Amino acid sequence: MKLNRRHFMKTSALLGIGAVGTKFPFAKIYSENERMNTSSSGITLTYKLFDLQLKHTWTIARGSLSTATVVLTELQYDGITGFGEAALTTSARYGETPETVLKFLSRVDLTQFNDPFLVEDILAYVDGIAPGNNAAKASVDIALHDWIGKRLGVPLYKLWGLDKSKTPLTTLSIGIDKPEVMQQKVREAEEFPVLKIKVGLGNDKEIIEAIRQVTNKPLRVDANEGWKSKELALERIQWLETEGVEFIEQPMPASQLADIAWLRERVKMPIIADESGGLRQAMRMIHTARAMGMKIMIGCMIESSVGITAAAHLSPLIDYADLDGNILINNDPFDGVKVVKGKLMLGDGAGLGVKSKQ
Amino acid sequence: MKLNRRHFMKTSALLGIGAVGTKFPFAKIYSENERMNTSSSGITLTYKLFDLQLKHTWTIARGSLSTATVVLTELQYDGITGFGEAALTTSARYGETPETVLKFLSRVDLTQFNDPFLVEDILAYVDGIAPGNNAAKASVDIALHDWIGKRLGVPLYKLWGLDKSKTPLTTLSIGIDKPEVMQQKVREAEEFPVLKIKVGLGNDKEIIEAIRQVTNKPLRVDANEGWKSKELALERIQWLETEGVEFIEQPMPASQLADIAWLRERVKMPIIADESGGLRQAMRMIHTARAMGMKIMIGCMIESSVGITAAAHLSPLIDYADLDGNILINNDPFDGVKVVKGKLMLGDGAGLGVKSKQ
Repeated sequence: MKLNRRHFMKTSALLGIGAVGTKFPFAKIYSENERMNTSSSGITLTYKLFDLQLKHTWTIARGSLSTATVVLTELQYDGITGFGEAALTTSARYGETPETVLKFLSRVDLTQFNDPFLVEDILAYVDGIAPGNNAAKASVDIALHDWIGKRLGVPLYKLWGLDKSKTPLTTLSIGIDKPEVMQQKVREAEEFPVLKIKVGLGNDKEIIEAIRQVTNKPLRVDANEGWKSKELALERIQWLETEGVEFIEQPMPASQLADIAWLRERVKMPIIADESGGLRQAMRMIHTARAMGMKIMIGCMIESSVGITAAAHLSPLIDYADLDGNILINNDPFDGVKVVKGKLMLGDGAGLGVKSKQ
Repeated sequence: MKLNRRHFMKTSALLGIGAVGTKFPFAKIYSENERMNTSSSGITLTYKLFDLQLKHTWTIARGSLSTATVVLTELQYDGITGFGEAALTTSARYGETPETVLKFLSRVDLTQFNDPFLVEDILAYVDGIAPGNNAAKASVDIALHDWIGKRLGVPLYKLWGLDKSKTPLTTLSIGIDKPEVMQQKVREAEEFPVLKIKVGLGNDKEIIEAIRQVTNKPLRVDANEGWKSKELALERIQWLETEGVEFIEQPMPASQLADIAWLRERVKMPIIADESGGLRQAMRMIHTARAMGMKIMIGCMIESSVGITAAAHLSPLIDYADLDGNILINNDPFDGVKVVKGKLMLGDGAGLGVKSKQ
């Protein structure tokens, strides 16, 4: 967690859980990229690429895509398999691509460990292999937690002492498109009581005005670092404050700390920053953010039901959820957390509790 | 956690786990004080007083005692019993006495809960009954964790992903006495590689000089808020820095925040502050302190092997341990964590893993 941000992030922090736990019954599309680290004993880790197909071309301030490639991991020990996923950002914003994830995971040798319960030691080893690579690291972290929950026979939320009835609502995100297409997406999102609107490509006001023609729901707005000057960001946020917007996420490039601090002093609405890590790191960030009086959001990338479900297990601890990555795709290979009228609904399966659809 | 301390507590924080998990096979000494909250369903909580007898009269800057009364709790659900303990400070420093603990626990009605895994909800309810009462609250928290570990069949350290080989050394504390008696206590503590020396009653230099005549071991010094002026504290700490002392604990009254901040700027050695709470709160404080770059110590009161063992399960996460409360008594009714050459040695029993001796 970047604590140099704490002096201005008075209200909010965002956690991105960058991976997923899952099973691989589907065709081995990328078998040439598949790797397995095995030995006669110890924990084994396998992983492969998988292409998630988006229902609509997905456009945010950083770029567009119609397919999102993730890396799915399997951690095996003592007859139990834990599932994980590394989800990547649009345009490799944090320096990770499917290729860097595969490269990092090829360096992870878990056969030296004979006890998956040594989470602290195992994750310290993984973290020490190279800096960064947070999505790759999270794919191991999530698989490890799934393994432990399965071994103990309890869902992760229960392992953490949480109440699944206290999951928050999730927003559905409306990607940038022509105003009339965004209006149509809003109509299709009828089930969701709160929406997240992507902006940051110049036509922000046109987008919000078009959306306000078709709905009065509370909105949350994500600029994905699209506003490059503090004056522009200030003007846009002050306008959004008159439009029923609850908070602004990533208004400016994360590197412009001083500008964001300047903004923080001038606007009322919460400003959400991005952090990322696996489940254990997320738990640490949640405790730290709470101690500092921050509000907490958990977001996602385009990812399968495994990564989304992993994040949902933590969600009774947080204020805002944007866990819709699996809703935006049409070939999700797993069943996991459900959404009913916008509320995240966890099941009772052990570990992540995700099931292959095939 | 009191975060207004964070601007000066750059190096360290101390966590006191104020309670213990245990079993009551011994005579019901205080049966008239015993209470039980039961109903046909839900979690039941019982509790009673128990007198721990000190091997030597225990003197620190706050006072003396030869008996320490604790409150032992039992949490029962579905045929499993979790054990807890509320340990009190010398001279009721934090406002808690055996009587206040009994009074608080009489207000705790866990029969409304039908799932001990709802730790977050249960502890939020307990916390909301009244402010303060941290030892009483911790006695419920610890019993709840013991229950969960037993139900899942794993020791608490394992539930938390920790490596029991990474427990730290514990100090043995040398209470204030005549210099020759303190020297004798140091000789009897031969097994312990690091000692904690209590000071704060005026004869600090005489004590340290007497101890330095009989040992070259690293020392940690605890003034238990005994130095009332910042100038006195500064002079004493600067002198201690020449005497092989690793850190100073509670040099001044905790309420004198500005004075302690002034001290922090002027001395090199870590200053350890006191915080307290149950296991869940301790985990939160550990994560928060780590994120702030602090070092962390876990200390104790005079308490049985149950409270000490509860703290020991967390100890692979911390830097310094002072978990000797059970070593200072001669009627510990339980077996729990062992100490071998100063190192805390956890067993493999489920939950706390404590056993009645009787």
